[in-house]
Amino acid sequence: MNRPASVEKMVEVIKKLPGVGPKMAERLSYHILKIPESEVGELLTAIQKARQIIKSCSFCYNLSEQDPCPICSDISREKHIVCVVETPQDLIAVSRVKEYRGLYFVLGGALSPLEAIGPNDIRIDKLIKRLKNDSISEVIIATDTDSKGEITAVYLAEIIKKLNIKVTRLGYGLPVGGDIEYADEVTISRAIAGRKEM
Amino acid sequence: MNRPASVEKMVEVIKKLPGVGPKMAERLSYHILKIPESEVGELLTAIQKARQIIKSCSFCYNLSEQDPCPICSDISREKHIVCVVETPQDLIAVSRVKEYRGLYFVLGGALSPLEAIGPNDIRIDKLIKRLKNDSISEVIIATDTDSKGEITAVYLAEIIKKLNIKVTRLGYGLPVGGDIEYADEVTISRAIAGRKEM
Repeated sequence: MNRPASVEKMVEVIKKLPGVGPKMAERLSYHILKIPESEVGELLTAIQKARQIIKSCSFCYNLSEQDPCPICSDISREKHIVCVVETPQDLIAVSRVKEYRGLYFVLGGALSPLEAIGPNDIRIDKLIKRLKNDSISEVIIATDTDSKGEITAVYLAEIIKKLNIKVTRLGYGLPVGGDIEYADEVTISRAIAGRKEM
Repeated sequence: MNRPASVEKMVEVIKKLPGVGPKMAERLSYHILKIPESEVGELLTAIQKARQIIKSCSFCYNLSEQDPCPICSDISREKHIVCVVETPQDLIAVSRVKEYRGLYFVLGGALSPLEAIGPNDIRIDKLIKRLKNDSISEVIIATDTDSKGEITAVYLAEIIKKLNIKVTRLGYGLPVGGDIEYADEVTISRAIAGRKEM
């Protein structure tokens, strides 16, 4: 016997989610068939509601229930400095740092020659337009430190410098709380280059 | 900034799914916010449809779109032999073995003294009732080979023998295609005990 068609379909659709393999999709599907109706309702409602309510902020492309988002509409923030991140999740991570009081811009990904993701596939044009219109004095590039994030940072820096705007990149070094034994060579080399007098 | 409330709710609900940790729940949530409406629709519809259509077969408790399920309603199958499994997924695994032409019974779990899962928490009464009413000559116990499955098998064997029904357990030994080097001691010991003349 095969799985009933409707279970097969559910497994197939769940398998499309990122990080979910065939075994996990099967396990999740049978779990969903087994839980009380109220729990399924809660799951479906949470997904539908988030999809309905969440918008992209038209200034920074942060995900938010309001447009402009709470950060862009916060008049106490410094308007002349913009931190560029790849995703809304990255924005939330940076925003936990209370010292940073500037604004943000979510690129929506990173350049990737290998995956054929070019400048037109992420919001580079929109970032440049915003930098031209608003009076921005500094752009902090906070893309990931993998090769895609690096390529994107270099590409952006080149364009932004031409606008006579200061461009900075988050500092490299050892992660706080990390064990030097497990740090890779490149990180240690960057940490040495960025060493500070005590 | 924290995550918007509706995203937070979605992450929290998704985190309840088995095998999904906080990071994975966040990743899935942002993925669901990003994909086209049609894909979200497909996901929600597949879940709702499976929940609506799938029933528990009232003879064997297999999950099926019909009641009785295709196996119980297949008149060509041997009605005097029942294979007892823990879950509908186990039933599908066993049913891939074409040689077995008997029926099934899904217990809906296994006994677990540690987790306080006793005989009344799985379908032991229903199994006994069925064995008493139908003329069953053999019960093959195909519960898992972990300690819960073992306890369940021993418990069931004791009750079923009293009904003067033959009880068998799936044979132990080396899994086919496996490497002896990686087989554990207990498995090898069982494989030696169950050795066959060539």
